[in-house]
Amino acid sequence: MSIKYDILTLFPGMVDDVTSSTMLGRAKKNKHIEVNSFNIRDWAKDKQRTVDDVPYGGGAGMVLKPEPLFDAIESLKTSKSKIIYMAPDGVPLTTNLAEKLSHNNHLIILSGHYEGVDQRVRDEVVDLEISIGDYIITNGTLAALVLIDAISRHIPNFLGSEKSLTEESFMNNLLAFPQYTRPSIYRKLSVPEVLLSGNHKAIEDWRYEQQLKKTSKLRPDLLKIKKNKND
Amino acid sequence: MSIKYDILTLFPGMVDDVTSSTMLGRAKKNKHIEVNSFNIRDWAKDKQRTVDDVPYGGGAGMVLKPEPLFDAIESLKTSKSKIIYMAPDGVPLTTNLAEKLSHNNHLIILSGHYEGVDQRVRDEVVDLEISIGDYIITNGTLAALVLIDAISRHIPNFLGSEKSLTEESFMNNLLAFPQYTRPSIYRKLSVPEVLLSGNHKAIEDWRYEQQLKKTSKLRPDLLKIKKNKND
Repeated sequence: MSIKYDILTLFPGMVDDVTSSTMLGRAKKNKHIEVNSFNIRDWAKDKQRTVDDVPYGGGAGMVLKPEPLFDAIESLKTSKSKIIYMAPDGVPLTTNLAEKLSHNNHLIILSGHYEGVDQRVRDEVVDLEISIGDYIITNGTLAALVLIDAISRHIPNFLGSEKSLTEESFMNNLLAFPQYTRPSIYRKLSVPEVLLSGNHKAIEDWRYEQQLKKTSKLRPDLLKIKKNKND
Repeated sequence: MSIKYDILTLFPGMVDDVTSSTMLGRAKKNKHIEVNSFNIRDWAKDKQRTVDDVPYGGGAGMVLKPEPLFDAIESLKTSKSKIIYMAPDGVPLTTNLAEKLSHNNHLIILSGHYEGVDQRVRDEVVDLEISIGDYIITNGTLAALVLIDAISRHIPNFLGSEKSLTEESFMNNLLAFPQYTRPSIYRKLSVPEVLLSGNHKAIEDWRYEQQLKKTSKLRPDLLKIKKNKND
C-alpha cells in the first residue's frame, strides 16, 4: 500500500525541501509514499513561461491560465488518478476526509497562487477541491504539503510505533487529553497524581473526562457533531 | 510596521527553506517580516540532545519535555512577545484571527511534533493555542509556516498591488466568485458573457450572486455566521 503524489506548483523546490525531512522523508525512503513536484511553467506556451493573466471583469491579482493546467493534468493523469485543487473555497479538510483519501493510489494536487485558477479548470478537470482552513495563504504549495502530511499518516505502517492517540481522539470528535512527561515536579508544577498511580482504569477515566471538559469549553461544535452521529 | 517571528521547531531548516522563496521571501527582503528559526534541541540538557520522553500514564508516542521549552521561550521573550503554540486542539485559525495577530510586533511560535508538549508548558508559558484545521499533521512546523503566511499578508504593503479580492470576500464570510482569464474561449468552453460586457455594475452583481450561490451550496455554515453578525 503506497500513494503517489504529483504536485503541480509554481514552487517545486519547496515540495522537495519539505518532503525530504521529517516523517514524510522517512515515508519516502520506506516507499510508503512517492512525491513528485512539477513546475506549472513547464507547460507554458511562450518563451517567458507565462502561466497567469489578468482576470476577466476586472479586479486585482492574477489568475492562472487554463491551457498550461489542462495540458499538465492530462499529461500526468491515468484512469486511477484523482485530481485535487487546493482552494480556500473547497471542502474543509478533516481527519475523516484525510483517511478516506489515503485509499487512493495516485493523487494529482494542483496548488494555486495569486487569485486562483481559471474556473474552467475547476469545472472540467478537477475532481475535488479542498480547503485546509478558513483563511487565505499566499502560497498554495504549503496547503498541498499540509494535505500530503494529513493523508499519509493514515497509510498502514507510516507512523510505525508512533501511532497517535491524539489522532484517535480527534476522529472521535473530541480534543486530546493533556499529556505530561518527566520530571514529575518541575518548577513546583506537579503532574496530576492519577497519572502516576498506575491505575489504568482511573487514568482512562481521567483522560476521557479531560477530553469532554476541554471539548465543551473550546469546541462545543465538535460535541454537536458527535451527538448527531449517535442519533 | 513589521513582525518578528521566532519559530521553535525540531526542523529549523524547513523554516528557512520555505521562507526564503515566494511572497514570504520577498517580505523578508523588504523588511516587512523577520523570521528566525530555533532548534528546540539547542536547549536540551544532555549530550544526546534529548527533548522528548514517554507520557505519564502510558500510551503511544512521545511528549516534548518541559525544561527545554521553558528555557527556550524565556530566552527569546520580551515584554512585548506573544507566545503561540500550534496544536490541533487550539483555537481554529481564521482570516479574522490572522488579521488581529498581524498587529503584534513579536510572535514566538512553538511547533510541536509527536504527541505534543508537556501540559505545564501550555498552562504556564503559552499565551494562545492555534489550530490550522480539524486534522492531524505529523509536522507542526508546517502549521507554523501556514500561520506566518496567513498573518503576514495583513501587514500593510505586504501584498503590494496584488491585494486580494478573494481575501476580502472571505472576511465577509462568503466564498470567492469564479475567476476567468484569457482566452475567452478554450476547448469550446466560454467565459460567462457578463464578464466581457464592460458593465461594471452587472459584473459586480453577477459576482455577488455567484458568491451567495456557492456559499449556500458548499458552506451554509458561513452564511449562518454572517447572519448572526448582522443580527
